[in-house]
Amino acid sequence: MRARMALNLKSVDYEYVEEDLRNKGELLLTSNPVYKMVPVLIHDDKSICESMIIVSYIDEVWTDGPSLLPSDPHERATARFWAHYVDDKLPALIEMAKSQTDETKAEATEKVLEGLQLFEETFEKCSKRKPFFNGENIGYLDVAIGSYLVSIKVVELMMGGFKLLDDDKTPLLAAWAERFCASEAVKGVMPETERLLEFVKERFAPQAAQ
Amino acid sequence: MRARMALNLKSVDYEYVEEDLRNKGELLLTSNPVYKMVPVLIHDDKSICESMIIVSYIDEVWTDGPSLLPSDPHERATARFWAHYVDDKLPALIEMAKSQTDETKAEATEKVLEGLQLFEETFEKCSKRKPFFNGENIGYLDVAIGSYLVSIKVVELMMGGFKLLDDDKTPLLAAWAERFCASEAVKGVMPETERLLEFVKERFAPQAAQ
Repeated sequence: MRARMALNLKSVDYEYVEEDLRNKGELLLTSNPVYKMVPVLIHDDKSICESMIIVSYIDEVWTDGPSLLPSDPHERATARFWAHYVDDKLPALIEMAKSQTDETKAEATEKVLEGLQLFEETFEKCSKRKPFFNGENIGYLDVAIGSYLVSIKVVELMMGGFKLLDDDKTPLLAAWAERFCASEAVKGVMPETERLLEFVKERFAPQAAQ
Repeated sequence: MRARMALNLKSVDYEYVEEDLRNKGELLLTSNPVYKMVPVLIHDDKSICESMIIVSYIDEVWTDGPSLLPSDPHERATARFWAHYVDDKLPALIEMAKSQTDETKAEATEKVLEGLQLFEETFEKCSKRKPFFNGENIGYLDVAIGSYLVSIKVVELMMGGFKLLDDDKTPLLAAWAERFCASEAVKGVMPETERLLEFVKERFAPQAAQ
């Protein structure tokens, strides 16, 4: 999602190849021999791996489009710091989905809520009353957090409507999420909540056969 | 170490403040409230956290000195990818130092050796027969890997002289490590192997009192 959002933001045409992760194709294995993971961006016959490194690459190569990282070095460092924090905290969403005891679920929930609360404060600082973390346009940090929004919705559904993101706890973030999801660059990229819910249920169902 | 090496490479004067991590000072707690961890670079009254983000920041602010990241976007992405891989693989050095069974030690050793072997191949590709990963000068990826060299020496000592890095297994990397450690920007920053060995023994000794 992150790579595709960044390409859309820069209005770059690309071919999207979906991988069957249970039966990885030769192209994936040769273009990311170290991790054998998606995403990989192939450009000019060279491969670039790791989603946020791909986003940086896209920002540096297609300089005509809107900048994804701020121009000020301190603001850039701040965006990178929070993007790093996103991938430190929000994978706990997966723990929430697959945890089988109330205790582990509560732990993961606390971790996610703590992260979202900090993003609420960070939004105020970074956006400077503009619509996105990056200012007028969606940028690096927006993409980093935004790619988790579907997972947040799925987990909310799985938890019977418990809200992780709402007008009470995180009003700025909730409004940002609506703007983000409504953006043209993002709309077609986010998987349907229902489709992801099916995938998660299949993968993490407590009694699932292996 | 990474932040100081980068500042030295750019010939930037700085004040180095060592933290007692068992009794963290107010300056650390307020300048990195999220992780409360070193390193933090304070510049123009603003704080920058996370070692490799600090290195990027230094590269972007002090553009007069030698570039720490390559100018080509694909080469930049490659340096970032391997720097990310470093912090994925080489913390297993700590597992080697503290593991209490032969099995966990063997697992961690395999992980480290696998990483070093890949760096050997990466060195050939990135350096293009120049002295450093970054070419003529020490750069981003050199600093990322180089900051683990003392830990490598310490673990070698702890394992009774078993060599992780040598002319047989990783000749290019072994020669790079010598050049790296001899550099003026690096010399004064690397802790004495003996001092770090004491620290590690004290912290990870199997029977250590808590």
